[in-house]
Amino acid sequence: MADTYKLILLRHGQSDWNEKNLFTGWVDVPLTEKGRAEASRGGELLAAEGLEPDVLHTSLLKRAITTANLALEAADRQWIPVKRSWRLNERHYGALQGKDKAQVKEEFGEEQFMVWRRSFDVPPPALDDDSEFSQAGEERYADIGPEAPRTEALKQVIDRLLPYWEEQIVPDLKAGKTVLVAAHGNSLRALVKHLDGISDDEIAGLNIPTGIPLYYELDQDLKPVTAHGRYLDPEAAAAGAAAVAAQGDKK
Amino acid sequence: MADTYKLILLRHGQSDWNEKNLFTGWVDVPLTEKGRAEASRGGELLAAEGLEPDVLHTSLLKRAITTANLALEAADRQWIPVKRSWRLNERHYGALQGKDKAQVKEEFGEEQFMVWRRSFDVPPPALDDDSEFSQAGEERYADIGPEAPRTEALKQVIDRLLPYWEEQIVPDLKAGKTVLVAAHGNSLRALVKHLDGISDDEIAGLNIPTGIPLYYELDQDLKPVTAHGRYLDPEAAAAGAAAVAAQGDKK
Repeated sequence: MADTYKLILLRHGQSDWNEKNLFTGWVDVPLTEKGRAEASRGGELLAAEGLEPDVLHTSLLKRAITTANLALEAADRQWIPVKRSWRLNERHYGALQGKDKAQVKEEFGEEQFMVWRRSFDVPPPALDDDSEFSQAGEERYADIGPEAPRTEALKQVIDRLLPYWEEQIVPDLKAGKTVLVAAHGNSLRALVKHLDGISDDEIAGLNIPTGIPLYYELDQDLKPVTAHGRYLDPEAAAAGAAAVAAQGDKK
Repeated sequence: MADTYKLILLRHGQSDWNEKNLFTGWVDVPLTEKGRAEASRGGELLAAEGLEPDVLHTSLLKRAITTANLALEAADRQWIPVKRSWRLNERHYGALQGKDKAQVKEEFGEEQFMVWRRSFDVPPPALDDDSEFSQAGEERYADIGPEAPRTEALKQVIDRLLPYWEEQIVPDLKAGKTVLVAAHGNSLRALVKHLDGISDDEIAGLNIPTGIPLYYELDQDLKPVTAHGRYLDPEAAAAGAAAVAAQGDKK
């Protein structure tokens, strides 16, 4: 039995809409070339650290799946088992999906913008099922049924993510497997909040950069041995987190 | 309930060792750029045909996994569930792994070469565990235990493939899912032999080209509605199969 459990969190590389500064949520946009390079580099960082994932968990969105594929190709671990779930998806951004972040900020003001972006439990208005940016009725989400989200705040992301954590990821960790979770800014913030016991207020200030593996050693009670884990490239991670925080300001 | 079941077989695109004309077997070589392009085109053919895989089965070898990843990316179906198994691996080529096909033919003669390559049940000599081309002791195959193959003829491939077919693939088909199997020249020949009821003698003449989806509609008894299925690009498939048959002749 291992003394500690090994968990690696990986936010997808830059997507088309990260680049265009649009709210993405559940809209299934691809990685940019830069994002693909970030993903491969994430895998190289794993290999350089000697971290060999034994199992992969991804969301159902291609930016996370492609990131994982490229990272595992670079780390020469493509053969490991894969599990996917909508519970690892990005936060559903409701009526903001498809909208320009800077434009929303200008139209609704800084305060409302930050409430929608970082409030713990106030979701944006629900997205209409008729919207071109809606996923309602998609075959991919048929399992969820009519309860599929039309908008979420971080609280709702936590509520739908934690059952997957408990039922699918924790058993892999307890079996001694090194677990790689390839997901999104907000689904990973939800998980980090849970792991590090971050308060509802403090989580607003935490940003996760794209493409840099965040490594947690967890003790037998699944508490981080080192609070907030460790980025495999700390300098790039600090710069990346600052860039995420500044996203509303970009033109 | 669907009238017929939908099964798509996809042999990986050209690998480094296809290009170099070496016996590959379980050696885990990557795709060439040409092989990656073949894989993407395979996905485009699926999309053009309106064939949407609901679940993916792959071997544990990167040339099949990367092929599936690229094909599903091109077909916009990356989110589907994935299952992997060593039982879909290429035939283990024993002591021939890593050897040049033309050289083996010259050294041992045409007759012995064809016996090793296409005999139904005469495997090449076993590969020594100390060989640089051996997979003995690899973590990836830990589940198989000490019985892991050191050489195989097609018969042994069938013996280890059919339990996976029955236990993992058939239930997906019977659940009405369109199943994509991304695998190898000989593991797919084994499956085709089973589906089409091809005799031990006749299977020697059947070659499967790289990167072109082979689509089977199966009836309720899992018998092909059209014998030998249908390649989504029949012309390219015929040329590709002829190239496979001629492999021993290349320099």
